[in-house]
Amino acid sequence: MAELTWPEIKDAVEQNAGVILPIGATEQHGPHLPLCTDATLAHELALAVAEPLNMIVAPTVSYGYRSRPTTGGGQTFIGTTSLRGQTLMDMVEDVINEFIRHGFKRIVLLNWHFENSNFIYESAFLATEKYKQTHPDLKIMIMELPFQTFSDETMAKIFPQGFPGWGIEHASIFETSLMLYLHPELVLFERAVDDSAEYYPWYDLLPIPSKIVAPSGTLWKATQASTEKGELAWKELIPMVIEKISFELPL
Amino acid sequence: MAELTWPEIKDAVEQNAGVILPIGATEQHGPHLPLCTDATLAHELALAVAEPLNMIVAPTVSYGYRSRPTTGGGQTFIGTTSLRGQTLMDMVEDVINEFIRHGFKRIVLLNWHFENSNFIYESAFLATEKYKQTHPDLKIMIMELPFQTFSDETMAKIFPQGFPGWGIEHASIFETSLMLYLHPELVLFERAVDDSAEYYPWYDLLPIPSKIVAPSGTLWKATQASTEKGELAWKELIPMVIEKISFELPL
Amino acid sequence: MAELTWPEIKDAVEQNAGVILPIGATEQHGPHLPLCTDATLAHELALAVAEPLNMIVAPTVSYGYRSRPTTGGGQTFIGTTSLRGQTLMDMVEDVINEFIRHGFKRIVLLNWHFENSNFIYESAFLATEKYKQTHPDLKIMIMELPFQTFSDETMAKIFPQGFPGWGIEHASIFETSLMLYLHPELVLFERAVDDSAEYYPWYDLLPIPSKIVAPSGTLWKATQASTEKGELAWKELIPMVIEKISFELPL
Amino acid sequence: MAELTWPEIKDAVEQNAGVILPIGATEQHGPHLPLCTDATLAHELALAVAEPLNMIVAPTVSYGYRSRPTTGGGQTFIGTTSLRGQTLMDMVEDVINEFIRHGFKRIVLLNWHFENSNFIYESAFLATEKYKQTHPDLKIMIMELPFQTFSDETMAKIFPQGFPGWGIEHASIFETSLMLYLHPELVLFERAVDDSAEYYPWYDLLPIPSKIVAPSGTLWKATQASTEKGELAWKELIPMVIEKISFELPL
Amino acid sequence: MAELTWPEIKDAVEQNAGVILPIGATEQHGPHLPLCTDATLAHELALAVAEPLNMIVAPTVSYGYRSRPTTGGGQTFIGTTSLRGQTLMDMVEDVINEFIRHGFKRIVLLNWHFENSNFIYESAFLATEKYKQTHPDLKIMIMELPFQTFSDETMAKIFPQGFPGWGIEHASIFETSLMLYLHPELVLFERAVDDSAEYYPWYDLLPIPSKIVAPSGTLWKATQASTEKGELAWKELIPMVIEKISFELPL
Amino acid sequence: MAELTWPEIKDAVEQNAGVILPIGATEQHGPHLPLCTDATLAHELALAVAEPLNMIVAPTVSYGYRSRPTTGGGQTFIGTTSLRGQTLMDMVEDVINEFIRHGFKRIVLLNWHFENSNFIYESAFLATEKYKQTHPDLKIMIMELPFQTFSDETMAKIFPQGFPGWGIEHASIFETSLMLYLHPELVLFERAVDDSAEYYPWYDLLPIPSKIVAPSGTLWKATQASTEKGELAWKELIPMVIEKISFELPL
Repeated sequence: MAELTWPEIKDAVEQNAGVILPIGATEQHGPHLPLCTDATLAHELALAVAEPLNMIVAPTVSYGYRSRPTTGGGQTFIGTTSLRGQTLMDMVEDVINEFIRHGFKRIVLLNWHFENSNFIYESAFLATEKYKQTHPDLKIMIMELPFQTFSDETMAKIFPQGFPGWGIEHASIFETSLMLYLHPELVLFERAVDDSAEYYPWYDLLPIPSKIVAPSGTLWKATQASTEKGELAWKELIPMVIEKISFELPL
Repeated sequence: MAELTWPEIKDAVEQNAGVILPIGATEQHGPHLPLCTDATLAHELALAVAEPLNMIVAPTVSYGYRSRPTTGGGQTFIGTTSLRGQTLMDMVEDVINEFIRHGFKRIVLLNWHFENSNFIYESAFLATEKYKQTHPDLKIMIMELPFQTFSDETMAKIFPQGFPGWGIEHASIFETSLMLYLHPELVLFERAVDDSAEYYPWYDLLPIPSKIVAPSGTLWKATQASTEKGELAWKELIPMVIEKISFELPL
Repeated sequence: MAELTWPEIKDAVEQNAGVILPIGATEQHGPHLPLCTDATLAHELALAVAEPLNMIVAPTVSYGYRSRPTTGGGQTFIGTTSLRGQTLMDMVEDVINEFIRHGFKRIVLLNWHFENSNFIYESAFLATEKYKQTHPDLKIMIMELPFQTFSDETMAKIFPQGFPGWGIEHASIFETSLMLYLHPELVLFERAVDDSAEYYPWYDLLPIPSKIVAPSGTLWKATQASTEKGELAWKELIPMVIEKISFELPL
Repeated sequence: MAELTWPEIKDAVEQNAGVILPIGATEQHGPHLPLCTDATLAHELALAVAEPLNMIVAPTVSYGYRSRPTTGGGQTFIGTTSLRGQTLMDMVEDVINEFIRHGFKRIVLLNWHFENSNFIYESAFLATEKYKQTHPDLKIMIMELPFQTFSDETMAKIFPQGFPGWGIEHASIFETSLMLYLHPELVLFERAVDDSAEYYPWYDLLPIPSKIVAPSGTLWKATQASTEKGELAWKELIPMVIEKISFELPL
Repeated sequence: MAELTWPEIKDAVEQNAGVILPIGATEQHGPHLPLCTDATLAHELALAVAEPLNMIVAPTVSYGYRSRPTTGGGQTFIGTTSLRGQTLMDMVEDVINEFIRHGFKRIVLLNWHFENSNFIYESAFLATEKYKQTHPDLKIMIMELPFQTFSDETMAKIFPQGFPGWGIEHASIFETSLMLYLHPELVLFERAVDDSAEYYPWYDLLPIPSKIVAPSGTLWKATQASTEKGELAWKELIPMVIEKISFELPL
Repeated sequence: MAELTWPEIKDAVEQNAGVILPIGATEQHGPHLPLCTDATLAHELALAVAEPLNMIVAPTVSYGYRSRPTTGGGQTFIGTTSLRGQTLMDMVEDVINEFIRHGFKRIVLLNWHFENSNFIYESAFLATEKYKQTHPDLKIMIMELPFQTFSDETMAKIFPQGFPGWGIEHASIFETSLMLYLHPELVLFERAVDDSAEYYPWYDLLPIPSKIVAPSGTLWKATQASTEKGELAWKELIPMVIEKISFELPL
């Protein structure tokens, strides 16, 4: 969308194009991945699936909700630049309202920053509430995570020593592999480390105590990442996302 | 706290008591459980753990964030009475600020409505931001879920036919059993049904389509609940919660 | 409402039931009454009048607007746990909006915390503004006080030494008597005292100076309360409230 | 304040001047009084008391909270131009914050529109909360009503047929008399009427039913007003207000 | 509007009157002009043009957005009493919404405080968004400046030594001349000075450094003002404003 | 910043790096320029000046305030995707607050969308207010426009037929030339047109009438753009911006 002109958007809408809003964050991703990792992965995924879905990709939301220790290292890192929950909700709601004004009827929120969950759902809820009388055809699909899981085979290849859970797979094998595959020029792989907090509780604590923060910002094992693993995951991910969106928001 | 007088609260604070804020919802729980199920379970759990922790239980937050189809049936049910995300955040933040004014240094948010997640974290974050200079001893523990899991043995007894995931364990075996054990007078067990939506997606859709909503509001198998299962779970839950809170917020 | 299932609410709405929202506070009430006094009295009153009015009682709003010295002792007491004005307005507005979605056409806000006045009116105003086109049958009754006065005879019996005004009748003869009658197990009557601030101005002052605060939190004479006075008042109050609501919101 | 230059304000602050913020409304006042009646009376009163108190009068807040039927006729009149509660709170809070920045330590909110109550208290509360650490000398006096009552003698002269209560004394004897005394050029006395709603409930109703609205906007008997009554009341009012403010906010 | 009664407003609306909302500020205007200068000029201009346009003048918005150094001297002056951007937007939006409820179809925002720009546009935008379905005839004209320029001849007479730009023409020749002409009793002309900041950047700096602030609050040459210049400008301004409004919002 | 890791940001802060926040919009720019034109130009300019200033470039704010007819064509174009004023203010304020937490003391808001003016100033004002006690070294420079003008020689070359004013230089000679120079791959120059609204008023009108909207979205003469003009302007712009920032925010 960013690189199109307005008559091109108008034409697309008239041909029933949908729109994908990639939502990321500006968040530390260890000593080897850039702050834009979440924003970049959301953006790349949107670009990769848009065409077969007849969808346009809107400019990425590059700032997200606050990082939490067990899913992103938390707000104590320099560089992690986050929004209040209310600000994120307002921004996504405004953008959705504009999409609706443009005439889009199929809208996807494609999120790659777990902490944005619920906030972006609320944005979509408020928009659909507002337009439910006047726009009965409107459908919004909210992907707070862009996938549920991968095939057993893929999981075994990516995590040969066992899968620690998606939460702490932050700046670790999975994300590092994807970035190595998609944007190797943004990865300082020689600085990648394996790391962990003292422990990862299933609840949360404030102010953030250092014991639940991985000092490096890598929550697990980044050194085991590889371009091959990234390619493997990405090539499985794309058709999965396309399938789900085309199922829920058919042309 | 509700049933105490102010001098009693004052004494308790002076003896370093903490405070637990139970957070629930007013949400449909199938044809057999009352709307107050989440609020009641949060409240009962808080009462059950408070004394050994030297904590006072504050009045329960009885309205919560909007119900979502895959974890609560969604907002299409009559009776489900929910708040905007912003309202919930403001309310919990205000209450925490008052606790801090009272002098409490150990605060627990004990939530039993999954959709409240992130909003109540934000409330706590804003409060700790505000008081971090003046109240360095303040600690807030946010339990968006009051447990991570149960022992294998217990799980096998509660879910002999397999565990479907906590999300759809709404108004089903687990919650129904707890209510049968704790408040049988509030359960219309003869109306309990086993039910399911056509499917439960791992993403979300708005406006809420009926295909992802369990028509009865029971997301899984409520008929398999029993008082015994409730007692089993509850008796395992109490010490788990006490242990975690006393570990993180020691006297 | 809290103890009903959603199909029961649905049936009730279809039979033109109304809904009462009790609104209270968590506020000091002297050394002898619990913090939940306002919330409890609002709740009990709602329960007592609901059935003949064909109305359902919603979960009580248990946190209210800030306590003021001349009507509740003020915000300097430990235990008094209050909301910002904006938070209270948002919460009550959200809840009313949900009632309207459920289909209720007769809504009563039944308040027992004087400081909530105007805020809850605004909540109701915003809701009626929003729905006036689509819900022409909607009626909201806002009882910022649940009564205007009592009969001369009753007043003489309750206040044999003269009536000081409802404002400072906080945690004093009237409220203590009602609690003795309704919930004696929550009253520490042996701790009840007669007290007063140095004076009660008809204006207000901030920050709250101690001279306008009754040190005990009882603004007048609690020792003169009795179960009999409570019964007398309650039995006069119930039919008065029923009459007014049935007059304004007839079936 | 409006008519002073900034160096004059600076000098005044250095000589410990206080500041009065008159708060009114733009609200119908019957067929004979202008919409600015509340704003004008607040402004005139502030001017009349300012000098002996060493206080400066700030520009009047000329829009207030929504009119209610039993105290101002309600929002159904053309001409009544009101703010949301939140807007009023924000505006008064902003202005108080600026006064504090200027260095004023004695601040009076002088209100002549009953419906502004509680909202302006909240504004003052938020400001004192914010500055309580850094400005321990700050004092704010909130006069939601500028008087409590008048002497029996004066009341008898103004209301020879009996006093109906201040609430419905809107656009009636009292306000009309004051305007006749202070601004006869703004009074169309020949159009004054005696009027009343069918009845004035002690609760409120929304949407506003016509039965509780005085059709003319005069809630009681305007024809009985006179310049003499206005002078009588005004000359008693001024010293009362001066006395209270000088007692609470001494130089 | 302030000085009219509600039946007069009603009649005016029925005869298709429009409404002008003058918007000013309470802002320092050098050692010789009062804080109300912007509010007064907006108000006077509205009064001067209203009649031929069949428009009513609403009470002036007397507090505006924060003063900025290069257009008003900035927020470091004692006396300058400003609102947050959000507060100003909310207030103007509320007032416009009420105008629309009254039935006005031609609304003019007549602003004389440059820093209010964009905020008041947003207020108008939100109101038109809200009412565009139901009030297709509604038109709002937003004059963030009440003029673009004056005739060459007039400019030469007012600024014989050259025109410095409207931004820094704050409390200087132009505004002082207008006030001398319209309200000489409010001008302390003997205190007028010529002044300047060290420099006026075309960007802005925060916190406000003293080097970009004119110490006296007069941003240019106030001593060159005269009643004659004021009269000249005013008499050219009135017909210009009338012409533009009558062109855009014809009867 | 987006492409750096958090330890790199930390090192930079320790070496007193500043930070530039580019602020743009997603707004129609005629039939030949992409919607991201403002965001791209802000981003490119920030990158071009950052290094000599020892500054880091933060992720661009890619959605801005609503487009207005005389400076961007207005909100009637499909594709123009804008935020409410409040949302923009909140977002920029949040991001500035995070920069301050990181330790940045020199912050530049570099805006290339004129309608963002005042809103982003307010964001910076709120942040400096909040931190003025604790961060006395903090300086924020707000460039609502990234330049004031160009040299006469350059102006003559770019606008040989005369300069129409920066406002309507939207999607016209200047912006098109810059994009041709910086990102020719994003320019569909063969579709560029010369266009104009019927007229461009110096006030504004809502709802937006078509007569003040240039139908193509190009407000002036895009066909006269050239790569050479873009290079000329850009090479004059870079040192001007560097000079101003290094003057105001020296190392």
